[in-house]
Amino acid sequence: MSISIYKIGGSITEDAEALDAFLREFAIVPGAKILVHGGGKEATRLADALGVPTRMVNGRRVTDAAMLDIAVMTYGGLVNKRLVASLQSLGCDALGLCGADGHAIRAVRRNPEPVDFGFVGDISTDGVNVSLFRKLLEGGIVPVVCAIACGDSGMLLNCNADGVAGALAVAMAQAGEQVHLRYRFELPGVLADAADPASVIRNITHRSAAQLKSDGIISGGMLPKIDSALAALEQGVASVEIGNTLISND
Amino acid sequence: MSISIYKIGGSITEDAEALDAFLREFAIVPGAKILVHGGGKEATRLADALGVPTRMVNGRRVTDAAMLDIAVMTYGGLVNKRLVASLQSLGCDALGLCGADGHAIRAVRRNPEPVDFGFVGDISTDGVNVSLFRKLLEGGIVPVVCAIACGDSGMLLNCNADGVAGALAVAMAQAGEQVHLRYRFELPGVLADAADPASVIRNITHRSAAQLKSDGIISGGMLPKIDSALAALEQGVASVEIGNTLISND
Repeated sequence: MSISIYKIGGSITEDAEALDAFLREFAIVPGAKILVHGGGKEATRLADALGVPTRMVNGRRVTDAAMLDIAVMTYGGLVNKRLVASLQSLGCDALGLCGADGHAIRAVRRNPEPVDFGFVGDISTDGVNVSLFRKLLEGGIVPVVCAIACGDSGMLLNCNADGVAGALAVAMAQAGEQVHLRYRFELPGVLADAADPASVIRNITHRSAAQLKSDGIISGGMLPKIDSALAALEQGVASVEIGNTLISND
Repeated sequence: MSISIYKIGGSITEDAEALDAFLREFAIVPGAKILVHGGGKEATRLADALGVPTRMVNGRRVTDAAMLDIAVMTYGGLVNKRLVASLQSLGCDALGLCGADGHAIRAVRRNPEPVDFGFVGDISTDGVNVSLFRKLLEGGIVPVVCAIACGDSGMLLNCNADGVAGALAVAMAQAGEQVHLRYRFELPGVLADAADPASVIRNITHRSAAQLKSDGIISGGMLPKIDSALAALEQGVASVEIGNTLISND
Protein backbone atom coordinates (compact mmCIF):
# COMPACT_ATOMS: atom_id res chain seq x y z
CA MET A 1 0.00 0.00 0.00
CA SER A 2 1.22 3.50 -0.80
CA ILE A 3 0.68 5.86 2.16
CA SER A 4 1.07 9.64 2.24
CA ILE A 5 1.82 11.02 5.70
CA TYR A 6 1.45 14.78 6.05
CA LYS A 7 2.64 16.71 9.08
CA ILE A 8 1.40 20.26 9.59
CA GLY A 9 2.74 22.73 12.11
CA GLY A 10 1.03 25.36 14.22
CA SER A 11 1.67 28.04 11.61
CA ILE A 12 -0.87 26.24 9.42
CA THR A 13 -3.40 25.14 12.07
CA GLU A 14 -3.39 28.71 13.45
CA ASP A 15 -4.02 30.50 10.15
CA ALA A 16 -7.61 29.97 8.95
CA GLU A 17 -6.78 30.73 5.31
CA ALA A 18 -3.62 28.59 5.17
CA LEU A 19 -5.43 25.78 6.95
CA ASP A 20 -8.38 25.88 4.58
CA ALA A 21 -6.07 25.77 1.57
CA PHE A 22 -4.09 22.88 3.04
CA LEU A 23 -7.19 20.86 3.96
CA ARG A 24 -8.69 21.26 0.49
CA GLU A 25 -5.44 19.97 -1.00
CA PHE A 26 -5.10 17.15 1.53
CA ALA A 27 -8.73 16.03 1.10
CA ILE A 28 -8.11 15.17 -2.55
CA VAL A 29 -4.73 13.44 -2.13
CA PRO A 30 -5.50 10.03 -3.63
CA GLY A 31 -5.04 6.77 -1.75
CA ALA A 32 -4.19 6.01 1.86
CA LYS A 33 -3.16 9.04 3.91
CA ILE A 34 -2.53 10.16 7.46
CA LEU A 35 -2.40 13.67 8.93
CA VAL A 36 -0.16 14.44 11.92
CA HIS A 37 -0.51 17.82 13.62
CA GLY A 38 0.94 19.93 16.39
CA GLY A 39 -0.85 22.72 18.20
CA GLY A 40 1.74 24.41 20.36
CA LYS A 41 0.45 27.91 19.75
CA GLU A 42 -3.08 26.96 20.80
CA ALA A 43 -1.63 25.30 23.91
CA THR A 44 0.39 28.40 24.77
CA ARG A 45 -2.68 30.59 24.31
CA LEU A 46 -4.81 28.40 26.62
CA ALA A 47 -1.96 28.24 29.15
CA ASP A 48 -1.72 32.04 29.13
CA ALA A 49 -5.48 32.38 29.63
CA LEU A 50 -5.30 29.96 32.58
CA GLY A 51 -2.23 31.63 34.06
CA VAL A 52 -0.07 28.52 33.60
CA PRO A 53 3.48 29.55 32.65
CA THR A 54 4.90 28.11 29.42
CA ARG A 55 8.54 27.05 29.66
CA MET A 56 10.43 25.77 26.62
CA VAL A 57 13.88 24.11 26.75
CA ASN A 58 15.60 23.31 23.44
CA GLY A 59 12.32 23.86 21.62
CA ARG A 60 10.44 21.32 23.76
CA ARG A 61 7.64 22.25 26.13
CA VAL A 62 8.28 21.48 29.79
CA THR A 63 5.11 19.63 30.69
CA ASP A 64 3.96 19.45 34.30
CA ALA A 65 0.54 18.00 35.20
CA ALA A 66 -1.30 21.28 34.48
CA MET A 67 0.48 21.70 31.13
CA LEU A 68 -0.24 18.07 30.20
CA ASP A 69 -3.97 18.70 30.68
CA ILE A 70 -3.64 21.78 28.48
CA ALA A 71 -1.80 19.78 25.81
CA VAL A 72 -4.42 17.02 25.90
CA MET A 73 -7.25 19.56 25.67
CA THR A 74 -5.75 21.48 22.77
CA TYR A 75 -3.88 18.87 20.69
CA GLY A 76 -6.23 15.96 21.43
CA GLY A 77 -9.40 18.04 21.75
CA LEU A 78 -9.72 21.40 20.05
CA VAL A 79 -7.20 21.18 17.20
CA ASN A 80 -7.77 17.50 16.46
CA LYS A 81 -11.57 17.67 16.40
CA ARG A 82 -11.63 20.86 14.34
CA LEU A 83 -9.38 19.23 11.75
CA VAL A 84 -11.50 16.08 11.70
CA ALA A 85 -14.77 17.97 11.37
CA SER A 86 -13.38 20.18 8.58
CA LEU A 87 -12.08 17.15 6.68
CA GLN A 88 -15.43 15.39 7.07
CA SER A 89 -17.14 18.44 5.55
CA LEU A 90 -14.75 18.07 2.58
CA GLY A 91 -15.80 14.45 2.08
CA CYS A 92 -12.67 13.00 3.67
CA ASP A 93 -13.49 10.30 6.24
CA ALA A 94 -11.14 11.49 8.99
CA LEU A 95 -10.85 9.95 12.44
CA GLY A 96 -8.85 11.60 15.21
CA LEU A 97 -6.41 9.69 17.35
CA CYS A 98 -4.07 10.36 20.21
CA GLY A 99 -1.55 7.67 21.01
CA ALA A 100 -3.78 6.08 23.65
CA ASP A 101 -6.64 5.52 21.19
CA GLY A 102 -6.45 1.91 20.05
CA HIS A 103 -2.94 1.92 21.58
CA ALA A 104 -1.94 3.74 18.40
CA ILE A 105 1.37 5.21 19.57
CA ARG A 106 3.32 4.34 22.69
CA ALA A 107 6.11 6.54 24.01
CA VAL A 108 8.76 6.33 26.69
CA ARG A 109 8.88 9.11 29.24
CA ARG A 110 12.00 11.15 28.80
CA ASN A 111 14.74 10.70 31.38
CA PRO A 112 14.52 13.55 33.94
CA GLU A 113 18.31 14.07 33.61
CA PRO A 114 19.80 16.45 32.54
CA VAL A 115 16.50 18.34 32.01
CA ASP A 116 13.26 17.24 33.64
CA PHE A 117 10.67 17.83 30.92
CA GLY A 118 7.90 16.28 33.03
CA PHE A 119 5.26 14.39 31.04
CA VAL A 120 7.19 14.39 27.79
CA GLY A 121 7.83 11.24 25.79
CA ASP A 122 9.88 10.01 22.89
CA ILE A 123 8.54 7.54 20.36
CA SER A 124 10.40 4.56 19.09
CA THR A 125 9.44 2.89 15.83
CA ASP A 126 8.16 -0.18 17.68
CA GLY A 127 5.77 2.09 19.59
CA VAL A 128 3.60 2.44 16.48
CA ASN A 129 0.59 0.11 16.26
CA VAL A 130 1.07 -0.67 12.57
CA SER A 131 -1.82 -3.12 12.47
CA LEU A 132 -4.31 -0.50 13.73
CA PHE A 133 -3.21 2.09 11.16
CA ARG A 134 -3.31 -0.54 8.42
CA LYS A 135 -6.83 -1.59 9.37
CA LEU A 136 -8.08 2.01 9.44
CA LEU A 137 -6.43 2.86 6.12
CA GLU A 138 -7.75 -0.31 4.47
CA GLY A 139 -11.21 0.70 5.69
CA GLY A 140 -10.90 4.02 3.85
CA ILE A 141 -10.43 6.00 7.06
CA VAL A 142 -7.96 8.90 7.28
CA PRO A 143 -6.27 8.94 10.71
CA VAL A 144 -5.65 12.44 12.10
CA VAL A 145 -2.97 12.03 14.73
CA CYS A 146 -2.04 14.45 17.49
CA ALA A 147 1.27 14.33 19.30
CA ILE A 148 -0.02 12.95 22.60
CA ALA A 149 1.23 9.40 23.09
CA CYS A 150 0.52 6.69 25.58
CA GLY A 151 3.08 5.85 28.27
CA ASP A 152 2.93 3.14 30.92
CA SER A 153 0.06 2.73 33.38
CA GLY A 154 -2.42 4.92 31.57
CA MET A 155 -0.09 7.92 31.49
CA LEU A 156 -0.41 10.38 28.60
CA LEU A 157 2.81 11.94 27.30
CA ASN A 158 3.37 15.11 25.31
CA CYS A 159 5.51 14.38 22.24
CA ASN A 160 7.01 16.25 19.33
CA ALA A 161 4.75 16.15 16.26
CA ASP A 162 7.67 16.01 13.78
CA GLY A 163 8.93 12.99 15.72
CA VAL A 164 5.51 11.34 15.68
CA ALA A 165 5.26 11.78 11.90
CA GLY A 166 8.78 10.41 11.41
CA ALA A 167 8.29 7.37 13.65
CA LEU A 168 4.95 6.61 12.01
CA ALA A 169 6.49 6.83 8.53
CA VAL A 170 9.42 4.59 9.43
CA ALA A 171 7.23 2.02 11.19
CA MET A 172 4.85 1.72 8.23
CA ALA A 173 7.80 1.57 5.79
CA GLN A 174 9.49 -1.17 7.79
CA ALA A 175 6.22 -3.09 7.74
CA GLY A 176 6.46 -3.11 3.95
CA GLU A 177 4.39 -0.10 2.93
CA GLN A 178 5.54 2.54 0.46
CA VAL A 179 5.52 5.71 2.56
CA HIS A 180 5.75 9.31 1.39
CA LEU A 181 6.36 11.80 4.19
CA ARG A 182 5.46 15.46 3.69
CA TYR A 183 6.26 18.21 6.17
CA ARG A 184 4.22 21.40 5.67
CA PHE A 185 5.02 24.53 7.63
CA GLU A 186 5.12 28.32 7.35
CA LEU A 187 7.78 28.38 4.61
CA PRO A 188 7.58 27.08 1.05
CA GLY A 189 10.56 24.78 1.75
CA VAL A 190 14.17 24.84 2.90
CA LEU A 191 15.48 28.27 1.90
CA ALA A 192 18.98 29.13 0.64
CA ASP A 193 18.32 32.66 1.85
CA ALA A 194 16.09 32.91 4.94
CA ALA A 195 14.92 36.35 3.79
CA ASP A 196 13.83 35.18 0.33
CA PRO A 197 10.87 32.79 0.10
CA ALA A 198 11.70 32.27 -3.59
CA SER A 199 15.07 30.71 -2.71
CA VAL A 200 13.69 27.21 -2.08
CA ILE A 201 16.36 24.54 -2.40
CA ARG A 202 14.78 21.92 -4.68
CA ASN A 203 16.74 18.90 -3.60
CA ILE A 204 18.82 18.01 -0.55
CA THR A 205 20.85 14.82 -0.21
CA HIS A 206 23.06 13.51 2.61
CA ARG A 207 26.05 14.98 0.83
CA SER A 208 24.56 18.39 0.11
CA ALA A 209 23.05 18.55 3.61
CA ALA A 210 26.53 18.26 5.12
CA GLN A 211 27.69 21.10 2.88
CA LEU A 212 24.65 23.29 3.65
CA LYS A 213 25.22 22.76 7.37
CA SER A 214 28.90 23.63 7.24
CA ASP A 215 28.05 26.72 5.17
CA GLY A 216 25.55 27.73 7.87
CA ILE A 217 22.65 27.72 5.38
CA ILE A 218 20.78 25.05 7.35
CA SER A 219 20.58 26.10 10.97
CA GLY A 220 18.26 26.48 13.94
CA GLY A 221 14.92 24.71 13.79
CA MET A 222 15.64 23.40 10.29
CA LEU A 223 18.51 21.17 11.47
CA PRO A 224 16.42 18.54 13.31
CA LYS A 225 13.88 18.53 10.44
CA ILE A 226 16.57 17.73 7.84
CA ASP A 227 18.28 15.20 10.09
CA SER A 228 15.04 13.34 10.78
CA ALA A 229 14.12 13.46 7.08
CA LEU A 230 17.46 11.87 6.14
CA ALA A 231 17.10 9.29 8.93
CA ALA A 232 13.61 8.39 7.67
CA LEU A 233 14.99 7.80 4.16
CA GLU A 234 17.77 5.60 5.55
CA GLN A 235 15.14 3.55 7.38
CA GLY A 236 13.09 2.82 4.29
CA VAL A 237 10.69 5.73 3.80
CA ALA A 238 10.24 6.11 0.03
CA SER A 239 10.33 9.91 -0.15
CA VAL A 240 10.43 12.93 2.13
CA GLU A 241 9.51 16.52 1.30
CA ILE A 242 9.94 19.54 3.55
CA GLY A 243 7.61 22.02 1.91
CA ASN A 244 8.71 21.98 -1.71
CA THR A 245 12.20 20.71 -0.91
CA LEU A 246 12.69 17.06 -1.83
CA ILE A 247 15.02 15.22 0.52
CA SER A 248 16.64 12.24 -1.16
CA ASN A 249 19.47 9.77 -0.79
CA ASP A 250 22.74 10.57 -2.55
CA MET B 1 -23.79 -9.49 18.20
CA SER B 2 -24.60 -8.64 21.82
CA ILE B 3 -23.46 -5.13 22.73
CA SER B 4 -23.30 -3.51 26.17
CA ILE B 5 -23.52 0.28 26.08
CA TYR B 6 -22.58 2.02 29.34
CA LYS B 7 -23.20 5.69 29.96
CA ILE B 8 -21.43 7.37 32.87
CA GLY B 9 -22.17 10.80 34.23
CA GLY B 10 -19.93 13.53 35.60
CA SER B 11 -20.41 12.32 39.16
CA ILE B 12 -18.37 9.25 38.17
CA THR B 13 -15.79 10.86 35.86
CA GLU B 14 -15.17 13.53 38.54
CA ASP B 15 -14.59 11.15 41.45
CA ALA B 16 -11.24 9.34 41.13
CA GLU B 17 -12.29 6.46 43.37
CA ALA B 18 -15.71 5.92 41.78
CA LEU B 19 -14.15 6.18 38.32
CA ASP B 20 -11.45 3.65 39.09
CA ALA B 21 -14.03 1.20 40.44
CA PHE B 22 -16.24 1.69 37.40
CA LEU B 23 -13.40 1.28 34.88
CA ARG B 24 -12.18 -1.92 36.54
CA GLU B 25 -15.71 -3.30 36.28
CA PHE B 26 -16.20 -2.08 32.71
CA ALA B 27 -12.83 -3.43 31.54
CA ILE B 28 -13.89 -6.99 32.29
CA VAL B 29 -17.43 -6.82 30.85
CA PRO B 30 -17.31 -9.61 28.29
CA GLY B 31 -18.04 -9.13 24.60
CA ALA B 32 -18.65 -6.01 22.54
CA LYS B 33 -19.06 -2.83 24.55
CA ILE B 34 -19.20 0.93 24.19
CA LEU B 35 -18.67 3.66 26.80
CA VAL B 36 -20.51 6.99 26.49
CA HIS B 37 -19.53 9.80 28.83
CA GLY B 38 -20.39 13.35 29.76
CA GLY B 39 -18.07 15.84 31.41
CA GLY B 40 -20.20 18.84 32.28
CA LYS B 41 -18.50 19.49 35.60
CA GLU B 42 -15.04 19.57 33.99
CA ALA B 43 -16.42 21.94 31.35
CA THR B 44 -17.89 24.24 33.99
CA ARG B 45 -14.61 24.25 35.89
CA LEU B 46 -12.61 25.18 32.77
CA ALA B 47 -15.21 27.82 31.84
CA ASP B 48 -14.90 29.33 35.34
CA ALA B 49 -11.10 29.39 35.08
CA LEU B 50 -11.37 31.14 31.71
CA GLY B 51 -14.04 33.57 32.90
CA VAL B 52 -16.63 32.21 30.45
CA PRO B 53 -20.06 32.28 32.12
CA THR B 54 -21.96 28.97 32.25
CA ARG B 55 -25.68 29.27 31.53
CA MET B 56 -28.01 26.29 31.78
CA VAL B 57 -31.61 26.23 30.53
CA ASN B 58 -33.74 23.16 31.31
CA GLY B 59 -30.60 21.26 32.26
CA ARG B 60 -28.89 21.96 28.92
CA ARG B 61 -25.78 24.06 28.54
CA VAL B 62 -26.20 27.18 26.39
CA THR B 63 -23.23 26.83 24.05
CA ASP B 64 -21.80 29.89 22.32
CA ALA B 65 -18.55 29.65 20.32
CA ALA B 66 -16.33 30.02 23.42
CA MET B 67 -18.33 27.40 25.32
CA LEU B 68 -18.23 25.02 22.34
CA ASP B 69 -14.42 25.18 22.38
CA ILE B 70 -14.52 24.44 26.10
CA ALA B 71 -16.85 21.48 25.54
CA VAL B 72 -14.66 20.12 22.75
CA MET B 73 -11.53 20.51 24.88
CA THR B 74 -12.99 18.84 27.96
CA TYR B 75 -15.39 16.19 26.60
CA GLY B 76 -13.42 15.38 23.44
CA GLY B 77 -9.97 16.03 24.90
CA LEU B 78 -9.35 15.76 28.62
CA VAL B 79 -12.12 13.45 29.81
CA ASN B 80 -12.14 11.24 26.70
CA LYS B 81 -8.37 10.72 26.52
CA ARG B 82 -8.05 10.09 30.27
CA LEU B 83 -10.75 7.41 30.04
CA VAL B 84 -9.12 5.83 27.00
CA ALA B 85 -5.63 5.81 28.56
CA SER B 86 -6.97 4.34 31.82
CA LEU B 87 -8.85 1.61 29.97
CA GLN B 88 -5.76 0.79 27.90
CA SER B 89 -3.78 0.36 31.12
CA LEU B 90 -6.46 -2.13 32.24
CA GLY B 91 -5.99 -4.16 29.06
CA CYS B 92 -9.14 -2.83 27.36
CA ASP B 93 -8.48 -1.67 23.78
CA ALA B 94 -10.37 1.63 23.98
CA LEU B 95 -10.56 4.21 21.20
CA GLY B 96 -12.04 7.65 21.76
CA LEU B 97 -14.53 9.20 19.37
CA CYS B 98 -16.45 12.38 19.02
CA GLY B 99 -19.24 12.41 16.49
CA ALA B 100 -17.03 13.86 13.76
CA ASP B 101 -14.51 11.00 13.99
CA GLY B 102 -15.33 8.59 11.21
CA HIS B 103 -18.63 10.48 10.90
CA ALA B 104 -19.67 8.45 13.95
CA ILE B 105 -22.61 10.56 15.11
CA ARG B 106 -24.38 13.33 13.24
CA ALA B 107 -26.69 15.77 14.95
CA VAL B 108 -29.10 18.51 13.93
CA ARG B 109 -28.58 21.94 15.42
CA ARG B 110 -31.41 22.77 17.75
CA ASN B 111 -33.94 25.32 16.55
CA PRO B 112 -33.09 28.72 18.08
CA GLU B 113 -36.76 29.16 19.02
CA PRO B 114 -37.99 29.34 21.77
CA VAL B 115 -34.54 29.12 23.40
CA ASP B 116 -31.34 29.72 21.44
CA PHE B 117 -28.97 27.11 22.82
CA GLY B 118 -26.26 28.03 20.31
CA PHE B 119 -24.09 25.12 19.14
CA VAL B 120 -26.31 22.45 20.65
CA GLY B 121 -27.54 19.48 18.68
CA ASP B 122 -30.02 16.66 18.92
CA ILE B 123 -29.26 13.20 17.58
CA SER B 124 -31.63 11.14 15.58
CA THR B 125 -31.24 7.39 15.30
CA ASP B 126 -30.25 7.68 11.64
CA GLY B 127 -27.40 9.97 12.68
CA VAL B 128 -25.50 6.97 14.05
CA ASN B 129 -22.88 5.43 11.74
CA VAL B 130 -23.81 1.84 12.58
CA SER B 131 -21.31 0.38 10.14
CA LEU B 132 -18.37 2.20 11.77
CA PHE B 133 -19.34 1.04 15.27
CA ARG B 134 -19.87 -2.49 14.01
CA LYS B 135 -16.43 -2.55 12.33
CA LEU B 136 -14.69 -1.24 15.44
CA LEU B 137 -16.50 -3.70 17.72
CA GLU B 138 -15.80 -6.62 15.41
CA GLY B 139 -12.13 -5.61 15.50
CA GLY B 140 -12.14 -5.94 19.29
CA ILE B 141 -12.02 -2.19 19.83
CA VAL B 142 -14.04 -0.49 22.58
CA PRO B 143 -15.37 2.89 21.41
CA VAL B 144 -15.37 5.60 24.09
CA VAL B 145 -17.81 8.22 22.89
CA CYS B 146 -18.13 11.81 24.04
CA ALA B 147 -21.24 13.88 23.50
CA ILE B 148 -19.86 16.15 20.78
CA ALA B 149 -21.56 15.38 17.48
CA CYS B 150 -21.03 16.49 13.93
CA GLY B 151 -23.41 18.95 12.31
CA ASP B 152 -23.41 20.27 8.77
CA SER B 153 -20.39 21.94 7.12
CA GLY B 154 -17.80 20.81 9.63
CA MET B 155 -19.68 22.23 12.60
CA LEU B 156 -19.30 20.53 15.97
CA LEU B 157 -22.36 20.42 18.22
CA ASN B 158 -22.65 19.94 21.95
CA CYS B 159 -25.14 17.15 22.74
CA ASN B 160 -26.61 15.45 25.76
CA ALA B 161 -24.69 12.31 26.72
CA ASP B 162 -27.82 10.42 27.87
CA GLY B 163 -29.31 11.17 24.46
CA VAL B 164 -26.18 10.00 22.65
CA ALA B 165 -26.22 6.70 24.57
CA GLY B 166 -29.93 6.22 23.86
CA ALA B 167 -29.66 7.00 20.13
CA LEU B 168 -26.63 4.74 19.79
CA ALA B 169 -28.44 1.89 21.55
CA VAL B 170 -31.57 2.24 19.44
CA ALA B 171 -29.61 2.51 16.17
CA MET B 172 -27.58 -0.63 16.89
CA ALA B 173 -30.74 -2.48 18.01
CA GLN B 174 -32.62 -1.49 14.87
CA ALA B 175 -29.66 -2.77 12.83
CA GLY B 176 -30.26 -6.19 14.36
CA GLU B 177 -27.89 -6.22 17.33
CA GLN B 178 -28.89 -7.26 20.86
CA VAL B 179 -28.22 -4.13 22.88
CA HIS B 180 -28.02 -3.74 26.65
CA LEU B 181 -28.03 -0.14 27.84
CA ARG B 182 -26.65 0.71 31.29
CA TYR B 183 -26.83 4.17 32.84
CA ARG B 184 -24.42 4.67 35.76
CA PHE B 185 -24.58 7.79 37.88
CA GLU B 186 -24.16 9.03 41.45
CA LEU B 187 -27.04 6.96 42.88
CA PRO B 188 -27.36 3.18 43.14
CA GLY B 189 -30.55 3.32 41.04
CA VAL B 190 -34.00 4.92 40.96
CA LEU B 191 -34.89 5.52 44.60
CA ALA B 192 -38.32 5.24 46.22
CA ASP B 193 -37.08 7.64 48.89
CA ALA B 194 -34.55 10.21 47.66
CA ALA B 195 -33.02 10.36 51.16
CA ASP B 196 -32.43 6.61 51.39
CA PRO B 197 -29.87 5.03 49.02
CA ALA B 198 -31.10 1.58 50.13
CA SER B 199 -34.57 2.26 48.64
CA VAL B 200 -33.65 1.26 45.09
CA ILE B 201 -36.71 0.29 43.03
CA ARG B 202 -35.71 -3.03 41.46
CA ASN B 203 -37.97 -2.94 38.45
CA ILE B 204 -39.87 -0.23 36.59
CA THR B 205 -42.30 -0.89 33.75
CA HIS B 206 -44.37 1.49 31.62
CA ARG B 207 -47.29 0.89 33.94
CA SER B 208 -45.39 1.36 37.20
CA ALA B 209 -43.56 4.38 35.77
CA ALA B 210 -46.90 6.12 35.21
CA GLN B 211 -47.87 5.39 38.82
CA LEU B 212 -44.48 6.50 40.22
CA LYS B 213 -44.79 9.76 38.28
CA SER B 214 -48.30 10.50 39.46
CA ASP B 215 -47.22 9.72 43.04
CA GLY B 216 -44.35 12.20 42.62
CA ILE B 217 -41.71 9.53 43.35
CA ILE B 218 -40.07 10.00 39.96
CA SER B 219 -39.38 13.68 39.42
CA GLY B 220 -36.76 16.19 38.31
CA GLY B 221 -33.77 14.86 36.46
CA MET B 222 -34.98 11.27 36.77
CA LEU B 223 -38.01 11.89 34.54
CA PRO B 224 -36.14 12.21 31.19
CA LYS B 225 -33.91 9.25 32.12
CA ILE B 226 -36.91 6.97 32.72
CA ASP B 227 -38.74 8.25 29.64
CA SER B 228 -35.75 7.69 27.37
CA ALA B 229 -35.17 4.25 28.89
CA LEU B 230 -38.76 3.24 28.15
CA ALA B 231 -38.52 4.70 24.64
CA ALA B 232 -35.33 2.72 23.99
CA LEU B 233 -37.09 -0.51 25.00
CA GLU B 234 -40.01 0.29 22.73
CA GLN B 235 -37.55 0.77 19.87
CA GLY B 236 -35.93 -2.62 20.26
CA VAL B 237 -33.19 -2.25 22.88
CA ALA B 238 -33.04 -5.60 24.71
CA SER B 239 -32.60 -4.26 28.24
CA VAL B 240 -32.06 -0.98 30.06
CA GLU B 241 -30.73 -0.46 33.58
CA ILE B 242 -30.53 2.83 35.47
CA GLY B 243 -28.01 1.99 38.17
CA ASN B 244 -29.45 -1.19 39.73
CA THR B 245 -32.99 -0.45 38.56
CA LEU B 246 -34.07 -2.64 35.66
CA ILE B 247 -36.42 -0.90 33.25
CA SER B 248 -38.60 -3.35 31.38
CA ASN B 249 -41.72 -3.55 29.26
CA ASP B 250 -44.96 -4.43 31.00
